[in-house]
Amino acid sequence: MNLLHPHTGLYTDLYELTMAQGHFFAGRHETRAVFDYFFRKNPFEGGFVVFAGLADLLEALQDFRYSAEDIDYLAAQGFKPEFLDWLRHFRFRGDVWAAREGEVVFPYAPIVRVEGTIVETQLVETLLLNLLNFESLIATKAARMRLVAGDRIIAEFGLRRAQGYGGMQATRAAIVGGANNTSNVLAGLHYGLPVTGTMAHAWIQSYEDELTAFRKFAEQYPERCILLVDTYDTLRSGIPNAITVARELEQRGYRLFGIRLDSGDLAWLSKRARQMLDEAGLTYVKILASNQIDEYVIRSLREQQAPIDGYGVGTRLVTGHSSPALDGVYKLS
Amino acid sequence: MNLLHPHTGLYTDLYELTMAQGHFFAGRHETRAVFDYFFRKNPFEGGFVVFAGLADLLEALQDFRYSAEDIDYLAAQGFKPEFLDWLRHFRFRGDVWAAREGEVVFPYAPIVRVEGTIVETQLVETLLLNLLNFESLIATKAARMRLVAGDRIIAEFGLRRAQGYGGMQATRAAIVGGANNTSNVLAGLHYGLPVTGTMAHAWIQSYEDELTAFRKFAEQYPERCILLVDTYDTLRSGIPNAITVARELEQRGYRLFGIRLDSGDLAWLSKRARQMLDEAGLTYVKILASNQIDEYVIRSLREQQAPIDGYGVGTRLVTGHSSPALDGVYKLS
Repeated sequence: MNLLHPHTGLYTDLYELTMAQGHFFAGRHETRAVFDYFFRKNPFEGGFVVFAGLADLLEALQDFRYSAEDIDYLAAQGFKPEFLDWLRHFRFRGDVWAAREGEVVFPYAPIVRVEGTIVETQLVETLLLNLLNFESLIATKAARMRLVAGDRIIAEFGLRRAQGYGGMQATRAAIVGGANNTSNVLAGLHYGLPVTGTMAHAWIQSYEDELTAFRKFAEQYPERCILLVDTYDTLRSGIPNAITVARELEQRGYRLFGIRLDSGDLAWLSKRARQMLDEAGLTYVKILASNQIDEYVIRSLREQQAPIDGYGVGTRLVTGHSSPALDGVYKLS
Repeated sequence: MNLLHPHTGLYTDLYELTMAQGHFFAGRHETRAVFDYFFRKNPFEGGFVVFAGLADLLEALQDFRYSAEDIDYLAAQGFKPEFLDWLRHFRFRGDVWAAREGEVVFPYAPIVRVEGTIVETQLVETLLLNLLNFESLIATKAARMRLVAGDRIIAEFGLRRAQGYGGMQATRAAIVGGANNTSNVLAGLHYGLPVTGTMAHAWIQSYEDELTAFRKFAEQYPERCILLVDTYDTLRSGIPNAITVARELEQRGYRLFGIRLDSGDLAWLSKRARQMLDEAGLTYVKILASNQIDEYVIRSLREQQAPIDGYGVGTRLVTGHSSPALDGVYKLS
């Protein structure tokens, strides 16, 4: 399953094809070439990059070809018949030498080397840079969060703020870098990743009151039930109602899995929530937190001893936020 | 052509499906609901947003369904047979009311309204936010560049630094916002956009010397030929060699279209380049510039009267750079 299929060969800058045709008519398209992929600057003012994106790249390279529709399109763009006849049968047959995904890598060291004909090594440049730059960026961001989160859960919830269909690669890279699971169902199917989720404010608002909304959810989802407690008033309504439902679940032989805080002062609210839950004998109920979380927020929460068991991380993970691109390049060696 | 096909319905956060099943078994899945899409804060510390993404959204909504593979996957995730039998036949049949793409919109005003059953309006939330947030962000960035670039060419060259396959939506949105054309060939095919390109440093380096590389390129591409002049030494090698090739093209009855500067002080280099070209009688040769260009760089170059005819814009356009996400939300009305 490759989202670009059957147009993978067109996922490129036009000049790669222009140069390919140039080499073809100069009779040097079989000339051997070697390109190296490396980057120059660590993102996030950090000290390392976690390499990612290789599996997606290799899958796309195996599918890197031109469909009849692609050839027609290129003909309409002015590419010449003799070149297009050759391109119609083009396959990437080069060799790829690479670091392993998840490895820590540093500026200026070659991470991937591609050997082959000058045309095949050049044509794949844009695809290679697109996937490796982005997935390495996000894996690095996730690793930075993992370093400060210790063994707490990190759930990737960012699809709604991800950069278009790049949300697919963002999810994959987040897991490579250290997130535990994701809300992105298609990424779950595509990459075989664990998916997770809670409930939205809209569920609560679709009922006449919060307690009814919680009860209706817990009735159907008694296992791994997580209640979102900030729709109306976290301390005066959300948590008391969650405690009521937790006790009702106990009577049915279940344990409420957790509550989720999604706004406000997460350090203060999590401490009060822990206290209220513990006083109700619900020491097993986990506290999850979300809302503009990144490695700096996690570190601050941990320094404040906020009793948070898991973080739902969105925008700041899946976009890279402060550094939205890795500056990796692909240079003729 | 929808890259998510036939899995569009899975491009969602898990909780949308969890809540859908919840509503289904509560017998309220046909209840009517209305959701509004709006955002809270203008990106880029700016004063407006250019709305974009609607056409991609509508295309995806028409394809928003669950394949047999999707249903099997959801069954393995614990969704119940009765719900899945219903989901198998699910189609989005709601109504979408929206601003036009390219319209300028402001915080807190509803931009899109979705009316339908609570399940269909809720299930599409993640997809809607993903596409509208990102495309509106990038269209806004492009419009900011257009405002300072006047009638100069803006070419979108960002695919290699785009966030994974979000590069497709980035290109489309850049054009909605005011870019003239793109290097992204698949976006050219998919959306019917004008594609453009020059040459890479690797073309130059694949020849023994720069002049030969320029000549070989101009031989094959005498029309709209753009020579990249900064591989070795812009003023002492690149531009003199480009002038030589321009004169050779004149003898063949062609005119060199332009040169491209890709490094260094673009204001200074463009002035010297213009002077050298004009002194050689090549007043018609255009000067294009690239390298970390955004609206601030364009404004600065124009304030310095840099004689640049077109800008190749990459990373800072396609990622949003300083504001990599629009904070749009989708709320039950």
